[in-house]
Formats: sequence, C-alpha cells, structure tokens
Amino acid sequence: MSEDDRRGFGARLEIVAIGEELLGGETVDTNAAWLGRTLKGAGLRVVRRATVGDDVAAIRAAVREALTRVSVVLCTGGLGPTRDDVTLDAVAGLAGVRLEESETLVRELQRRFAARGLTMPEINRRQARVPAGATVFPNPRGTAPGLAIAVGDGQVLLLPGVPQEMRAITEASVLPFLQRQWPASVRPETRVLRTTGIAESSLAERVEDVVATLTDLEVAFLPGYEGVDVRLTSWGGATDALDAAVAALASRLERWLYTVGLESLEEVVAAELVRRGRRLVVAESCTGGLLAKRLTDLPGSSRYLLAGWVAYVNRAKELFLAVPPSLLADHGAVSEQAVRAMAEGGLRFPDADYAVAITGVAGPSGGTVEKPVGTVWIAVAGAGQTVARRLLLPGDRAEIRDRSAQAALHLLLRQLRREGRGHDHAQ
Amino acid sequence: MSEDDRRGFGARLEIVAIGEELLGGETVDTNAAWLGRTLKGAGLRVVRRATVGDDVAAIRAAVREALTRVSVVLCTGGLGPTRDDVTLDAVAGLAGVRLEESETLVRELQRRFAARGLTMPEINRRQARVPAGATVFPNPRGTAPGLAIAVGDGQVLLLPGVPQEMRAITEASVLPFLQRQWPASVRPETRVLRTTGIAESSLAERVEDVVATLTDLEVAFLPGYEGVDVRLTSWGGATDALDAAVAALASRLERWLYTVGLESLEEVVAAELVRRGRRLVVAESCTGGLLAKRLTDLPGSSRYLLAGWVAYVNRAKELFLAVPPSLLADHGAVSEQAVRAMAEGGLRFPDADYAVAITGVAGPSGGTVEKPVGTVWIAVAGAGQTVARRLLLPGDRAEIRDRSAQAALHLLLRQLRREGRGHDHAQ
Repeated sequence: MSEDDRRGFGARLEIVAIGEELLGGETVDTNAAWLGRTLKGAGLRVVRRATVGDDVAAIRAAVREALTRVSVVLCTGGLGPTRDDVTLDAVAGLAGVRLEESETLVRELQRRFAARGLTMPEINRRQARVPAGATVFPNPRGTAPGLAIAVGDGQVLLLPGVPQEMRAITEASVLPFLQRQWPASVRPETRVLRTTGIAESSLAERVEDVVATLTDLEVAFLPGYEGVDVRLTSWGGATDALDAAVAALASRLERWLYTVGLESLEEVVAAELVRRGRRLVVAESCTGGLLAKRLTDLPGSSRYLLAGWVAYVNRAKELFLAVPPSLLADHGAVSEQAVRAMAEGGLRFPDADYAVAITGVAGPSGGTVEKPVGTVWIAVAGAGQTVARRLLLPGDRAEIRDRSAQAALHLLLRQLRREGRGHDHAQ
Repeated sequence: MSEDDRRGFGARLEIVAIGEELLGGETVDTNAAWLGRTLKGAGLRVVRRATVGDDVAAIRAAVREALTRVSVVLCTGGLGPTRDDVTLDAVAGLAGVRLEESETLVRELQRRFAARGLTMPEINRRQARVPAGATVFPNPRGTAPGLAIAVGDGQVLLLPGVPQEMRAITEASVLPFLQRQWPASVRPETRVLRTTGIAESSLAERVEDVVATLTDLEVAFLPGYEGVDVRLTSWGGATDALDAAVAALASRLERWLYTVGLESLEEVVAAELVRRGRRLVVAESCTGGLLAKRLTDLPGSSRYLLAGWVAYVNRAKELFLAVPPSLLADHGAVSEQAVRAMAEGGLRFPDADYAVAITGVAGPSGGTVEKPVGTVWIAVAGAGQTVARRLLLPGDRAEIRDRSAQAALHLLLRQLRREGRGHDHAQ
C-alpha cells in the first residue's frame, strides 16, 4: 500500500491510453508521465493505466473496467481524422449517445485551415462530431477538441494523443474541470532542489544525515544524466518543515545546486543574464549548436544571446574565433589552449559580455589514449578573466554532448554569481 | 477487433508494468515501447498493457484479468530488494506457490558484490527467492533474475524494471522462451514511408484509393509534427504485395517522401551529402543552432558539416554573413531578401558546396500583422543557384523551430537530388 493510500486521499482516477503505436512500440508514451505528474501536482492520483489498440471492443472493455474502480477515466489518443481513430465512437457507444456534427466546431476547423491558406479536407469533419450532452474542451493547438462524456455515474474524458495538444487542453480545461469534481482534494506541497555535476551516490552520502531527520516528508532522488533532482513532498501542509529541509540540504549542496524550483539550467542562466544585463556569445565544436539551441529554446532569448558559432572544423575555429593555426597544430583542437582561445575570440563580438566555448571528443570515434571519447574542455570568458575546465564524461555521443552543454551552462552560472559577489564592494 | 485478430494470429500477450513512479510520472516508461517493438519483431503481439502501483492487490488483479484474455503475461518492475518491491510475492500468491531461497542465487549475488569489493547487504537476499517450480532467467546486468511462473494454464513472466537489465534478460532468455511457446508464430514484415511537409489529412486523401486496394496489409498513418509516416505491415509474408504497395504510394507521395525505411531526415540528408562528397554550412536565426545540432547528432558529421552560424541579432547577420545593413533595414530580417543573402553569404566559407539559411518569427512574441508568429523563410544556396521558400507554420515556439529545421533539411535534400538529375547528362 502506498503512502497516499494510507493517508486515504480520495481523488483517484485511471487513464486509458489508446493507440496501436503505443503497443507496437513505435511511440514512447510520454503523455503518461506528464499526466501522472501534472495530475499529482493538482492532488489527483492516477491509480492505474491501461494501454489498448485502436479497437472499439478493447477501448470499451478497458473503460468499462476502469469505471468499476473509479469515477473518472481519462482517455488519450484515437481522436484523429482517419478511420483508425475510433475512440470517440467507442465511448459514445458505451454512453449510449449519438454523435452529432457540431456546426460551431466545423466552422472553427474551417477557420483554422483557412488561417494557413488551406481548405479543410472533408475527412476532418469527423473531428467535429460531439456526443449528445458532452462538454467540449477547446483545443488551442490542433483540430481534435477534448470531451467529457457521462457514462453511467462516471465521467469519461477524451483527449487527443498529440502531446502538445493533450497538454494544452489539460492545463486550460481538464484540470479546472477535475478540480470542480473534487473540490476538497488535498494537494501535496513539493520542493525540488536541482543539482548538476555530482553523482547520485555522492549526493546521497553528502546529505544522508539530513535526510534521516526528515521523517514527515517524502524524499526522492531523481537522477538523470544532466543532474540529480532532490524532491521533497509534504502531504500534510508542513510548509515550515519543507522550507527548513530545503535550507539544510541547500547548504550541503551549494556548489552543485542551480535552483530550488522546476526551472531548467538554461532558464536559470537566462534569468541571471537578463537580471545583470549581460549578453552572451557561444562557440561550439563537439556540441555542434546544442548549447545555442538550448539557450534559444526560451522565449525572449534575444535579450541575452547575441550570436554563436558552430566551429566544427579547425578552419572555422581559425576564421570565426581567430584561434591561431599554430595553437591548434601544437595542442590540438581538444585542449585547454584551444578552448580558451575560442572563448576569448568569441568575446570580441560587439557588445558581448561573456563567451562560452566547448570543444571535445563526443565519439563514437575520434578518441585516443591521451584524449579518449568523453574528453571535453569548456571555458567561460568574461568579467576580465577566462576559466577553463576539463571534463571526462561517460555515456554515448548524445549523453556526452548533453552533459557538455550542461557543464558549460553551470560554469557560466557560477561565474555570473561570482561576478555579483566580486562587485558588491565596487557598486 | 483489430486487423490481426481477424487474421487469427495466435502469439498474443499482455504486459503488466509495475511501479508507483510510472503512475506518478517520475519515470517515463521506455520499457513498454522497447518491449512492444522487440516482441513484434519476433512475431509476438502485445495486445494490452496495464500499469499499476507497487501494490499486491492491484498487481494480482491486473495479472488475473490479463490471464482471462491471453496465456502469457509479462510483468516488469517491482523485483528490487526493498520492501516496496512486491511483484514476486503478489504473483507467487496468485500461483499458490511458496517462495524458497535459492542457494545458487545467493552465491551468485555474493559473488557479484564481491567482484566490486563489497559485501552483499542482507536486504538483497529477497532477490534470491524463487517460487517453487519457476524457471529462472539469469540477469547478466543486475541482481534481480527474471522468472517464469505457471499460473493456472497460463505463464507469468517477471522481469526487473531497470531498462538495461530488462533488455538483457529479454534478449538472452525471454525471446527464446516465448518462441518455444509459439514455434509457429508468424513474423510481420513492415515498410515505413516517411514524409514531411504534408498534413496527415491531405496525405490520406491523396492515397485513399491506393490504400483501399491494400486489403491484405495493415496500413497506419503515424503523424508527428515533423511529418507523417505511413507504415505497411504484412503478417503473411506477402513481400511482393508490400513492395508493390510501397511503389504505388511512393509515386503519389514523391514530393514529400524522404525515405522508405527508419532513418531520420538528417540521416538521409547526411548520407546524400557524403555520397556526393558535398559539404555544408548552416546559417540560423530563429532556430538558434537547432539545425546544426541535428546535423551533428550523427556520428561522423564532420564529413559533411563544416561550420555554422547562429546569427541571432542583425549585427551577427551583417558580420558573419555579409548581409548588407540596408537590406535588413529595407526588408527586415525575416524576408526572402535576407534569407537569400544569409545563404549566399554562408556559401563563401572555404570548401562549402551548400549553405542552408533559416530566419523567422518563432514567437511567442515578435509577430506582426504582416509577419505573424510562424512566418519563416528558408533558403538553400549551392550548385549555382539559390532557392528560397516561405513557410507559415502552426504551433508553439518549439514546434515552429522543429518544423523550420525539418523544412530546411527537406529543401536541401530536394536540391541535392535535383543536382543529381541535372548533372546526369553532363557526367
């Protein structure tokens, strides 16, 4: 029996995920984890999930079974325009109601296609069908609306399987809808400490004695290859205990901690750059644009990112960043000398305050005895100095590239925070 | 009833995935997709999957239900050493058999710990328990073995949830075990046509009449925001019919088809560049490094990618790519003139054969009535010409960026293929 069951919280629901591609393995079901997390954050527990194919009988059986255990079933997938998509028919049949074409939805679909200069294909009319009496949740991102349909004493919610659409409808409409069903549901309170650059076992050892004292909180270590998150959860509204635990853990983990919250490292770095009015350039070799991509994933990134170079071949390092050919010949492109020269060359860009550089061996080939795959140099130039670090990273090409970008962002963050401290007296 | 059921293929099984973290969303269930794909490749269909928490009653209920539909149930997760891990107890109870500590397994565990200079913690003895009469599948990667347990007339297979361990046991032991259960199982043959730049509904309309004739094949449209895959499956070894269907569909979809296979668009582009000995530079504004990142995700990318620019601010477009300030002032950075100038400026890089440029409004802000969010210009310069296209893309910032990079890669691929045809006579 889980913690929550012992505490007897009542807001329980089940998910039925629909799609042959989820069973055949063509698609990884990322909706499941997102929904689990999002609903849990709203105090709603997913207690079971069934995954079935695009098959009327299988969908009906799974929904019917789920409704014997819980009063709300959330279905994802199978709302597309093609004949494969049978979720709506299956659930309307179970509810014993007809599907009617909604003029409003047809017009909305036509408008959506027209906005892109297209005529709505006739096939999309299927997505304008609504079961009698259903609640319609608008889809701001696509053509299939979400629906809530009464089946017996229960409610069956239908959402499209496309992640962006599912998420948008859930946030805008489904969470408020569910919160009206369970107005008194207890929401857990959580704090997340996000760290990078320290292994899970080292981190756990470092905070072992603190964690042993946190008997009223759920403590989870969530390792990923970009870092380890420590999640603290209180189901009893023990806000003071949470805050005290965060403070105790933060003081042990200061060197690796980049945020108490859910922000990504690039979001924390971006906020720090904007707050200080600093502008950045990036010079990448082995990460090949990944660092710039992460920094520009965020809206408004032109406030802090000026430009970047993918200096993939040596000639590019010379031409873009004025790295001397003799330096590359003497020390190689993966060296402290090269990464410092790349960062300092980048910093010459007009108005740049900081430059970050990365050069390394991402593999799978290109490693040597002296510089094996996973050898990466990172540097940050700015505020009158250049700091460089050598990394020796485990993992495959993708992991090495991700970890390199993560370490470079973390080094930049530490330099930015140091700048703040160093300038306190001068300001 | 699905296509396969109608055809009466018998090798069907269900999965029960066990773990609170799968319901709470702390973990994405990647095992499910891997197992689905791997089993399907061996001619074994996963027809349903249930996900439940670490809870004896829930596990028993899910396994018992599954056994009413199929004769083999594969459970993953809940075999760890801690008290949370109750899968073994749940299934042994269902089978009505006792758990006995296996001396062989205890010695194996002790040996495993000793090899790392450690003493086996007492807690790990739990993982040496075996239900009477069960088949043990050795775990080459960890401490929990796999097990096959007879429950009534059916078989319940238990595998650890750690992906590396689950995969290793499946490949070494579970697939051979299952193939002995169903010696005559039919392996499916599949073909995938990957397209980009055409919406699912338009694609479906365009091939509707062809698909109507493919009565012996399973046809699935798999849309993602980077394109639509069409998957054809034959369960009857109808290779000729598959190939004929591929040819018929390919001729309808030529303009959007980039491969018949499983390669990503960047892999297809990379192979084409390498085959032709062509080298590329990329100049990105709104995608901010994403295109370069995708091209360098692949091992060996230095064979075809020379360099890239993230020309995020106008000054970078001027300095890196020699775009005239007056052009940017007259037409704006998101314009046909700007994107052509970016590509042509990039092409000046030493030894570059092709240059790809992208500039647009990725949003969420920065849109105007004339150039709304989603307005993107892409260009490809090379082989003596520059082609440019205007896109008007739906979606959020991430989608617009992904679709822009995808469209640019596709335009490059089309130009590369055209080059081939154009030069046929000259060569």
